[in-house]
Amino acid sequence: MEGVDSTQLRTLAAVIGEGSFEGAARLLHVTQSAVSQRIKALEGAVGQVLVRRSRPCRVTEAGRPLLRLASQLVLLEGEALAEARGPLSGTGTRVAVAVNADSLATWFVGALARLPVEPALHFDVRQDDQDHSAELLRDGSVMAAVTAQREPVQGCRVRRLGAMRYRALATPALAGRWFADGLTTAALAAAPVLVFDRKDRVQHRFIRAVTGQDLDPPAHYLPSVPAFSEAVRRGLGWALIPEQLAGPDLAAGTCVDLDPTRHVDVPLYWQHWRLDSTVLAALTAAVHATAAETLH
Amino acid sequence: MEGVDSTQLRTLAAVIGEGSFEGAARLLHVTQSAVSQRIKALEGAVGQVLVRRSRPCRVTEAGRPLLRLASQLVLLEGEALAEARGPLSGTGTRVAVAVNADSLATWFVGALARLPVEPALHFDVRQDDQDHSAELLRDGSVMAAVTAQREPVQGCRVRRLGAMRYRALATPALAGRWFADGLTTAALAAAPVLVFDRKDRVQHRFIRAVTGQDLDPPAHYLPSVPAFSEAVRRGLGWALIPEQLAGPDLAAGTCVDLDPTRHVDVPLYWQHWRLDSTVLAALTAAVHATAAETLH
Repeated sequence: MEGVDSTQLRTLAAVIGEGSFEGAARLLHVTQSAVSQRIKALEGAVGQVLVRRSRPCRVTEAGRPLLRLASQLVLLEGEALAEARGPLSGTGTRVAVAVNADSLATWFVGALARLPVEPALHFDVRQDDQDHSAELLRDGSVMAAVTAQREPVQGCRVRRLGAMRYRALATPALAGRWFADGLTTAALAAAPVLVFDRKDRVQHRFIRAVTGQDLDPPAHYLPSVPAFSEAVRRGLGWALIPEQLAGPDLAAGTCVDLDPTRHVDVPLYWQHWRLDSTVLAALTAAVHATAAETLH
Repeated sequence: MEGVDSTQLRTLAAVIGEGSFEGAARLLHVTQSAVSQRIKALEGAVGQVLVRRSRPCRVTEAGRPLLRLASQLVLLEGEALAEARGPLSGTGTRVAVAVNADSLATWFVGALARLPVEPALHFDVRQDDQDHSAELLRDGSVMAAVTAQREPVQGCRVRRLGAMRYRALATPALAGRWFADGLTTAALAAAPVLVFDRKDRVQHRFIRAVTGQDLDPPAHYLPSVPAFSEAVRRGLGWALIPEQLAGPDLAAGTCVDLDPTRHVDVPLYWQHWRLDSTVLAALTAAVHATAAETLH
């Protein structure tokens, strides 16, 4: 990497992090034209296009290793400066992480709240599924991720956090209409089910565990955790709901557990850069402590 | 459009709707090779590449008008067949809509629950910001959208739904630490704020309304409605919260309203295809009725 300018690398990280040249200029307190010149100079030095000028701006395949280097540089540099100048000096360190939707809606904010107020951290959370999380780790867009993927992403460490437990919920009315004879194959093939998005296979795993078959019941897609729970409560379909969110509805009787003897466990992992960073170490400790209290 | 085969059009809609050739094959109960042949034949007839073979598959610029035609054809055909065969015959109609995150997390599921159980509808909801919603309407991926964009998308009707009202919330501790002297410019420039994502300008609009200035306080990005509210409750920052979600925290005293005399209203619109569809008419009526009860 000899000859690559660290200001240019920081600018690359800012353009991709903020998604635009304007955003990077605002963040770095320079003009947009300065941002543009630095990116062009870096692209000239490397001999590759590094930024796809789309809305938002994206890193190119050739730019990925440089983006990751840039992100790691920004983190380590910020930490070294904060240590040198004392705890109250810094403008704060950006902590970018990817978290799956159900963790984000349940336990993850508890982990963030565990971190001390100083040094100031700016959390930049991406809600994402595991495929995209791996890509964000690889290209340096995030330093860590809560993900269902256990294979370590290149250059990352991975540790199991525990399993998120899901229970099959429905309103008493829906259960009575479709499952009066229990979770039969015929009923599971015909009853409307809720699915988070095209990548969510939790409901189908449950169906396969119960019936031994791959069924394709009529499905509603609802990619929002609160909307998903509300749709179960409103009787639009049955669905697998994280145990943490299911409790109140089961206690109030607005929903019933379709089979209290069954659940689906989804193991979750913490993947993070192999990097000697105090911020990353503190975040890792907070995530593990919160996960230990809330996951199985 | 003479000479374009409706089976091929339906296949195009299925490939883009499901995101893959496998998914389309499953939906249409044909082999993946049949799906592939139909798409190739349609591309041959039109003389353009219509599907970008990515993961997920995306429509090309040239494919957009055909995809929209296909989606409208599928809807109208399904309705005509259901009417001809009687109400209980159908396999259900797919209702694809785009909804902004806060509406989806609060009132929108109530509108879906208002629709009658028969004919069977399969809701396919996309959570999206207004820019992307317009594109989804244009290319036929969704038939309607709840969006902050008031200019009608080409071929769409638009009607105002009301405004979502936001209030500035923080924990009593955060308010005491940063805003003991009120919402001063200095405090708003320094206090940590929560922002949903890079397109969320609600907090900055509030800051501008209060101070008359564009400030750039340290921000945490949290693109999940439940995580966002939880982060306010945990004291990570202050933020604008939809009034509907703010109520319980204000009543319990876990959060305070930073200025009860101020709020931000975001007008929302219902954009939908100009199409004589009974399903679309019923959905429009349900959305308007629910919005009238919950928005300002």
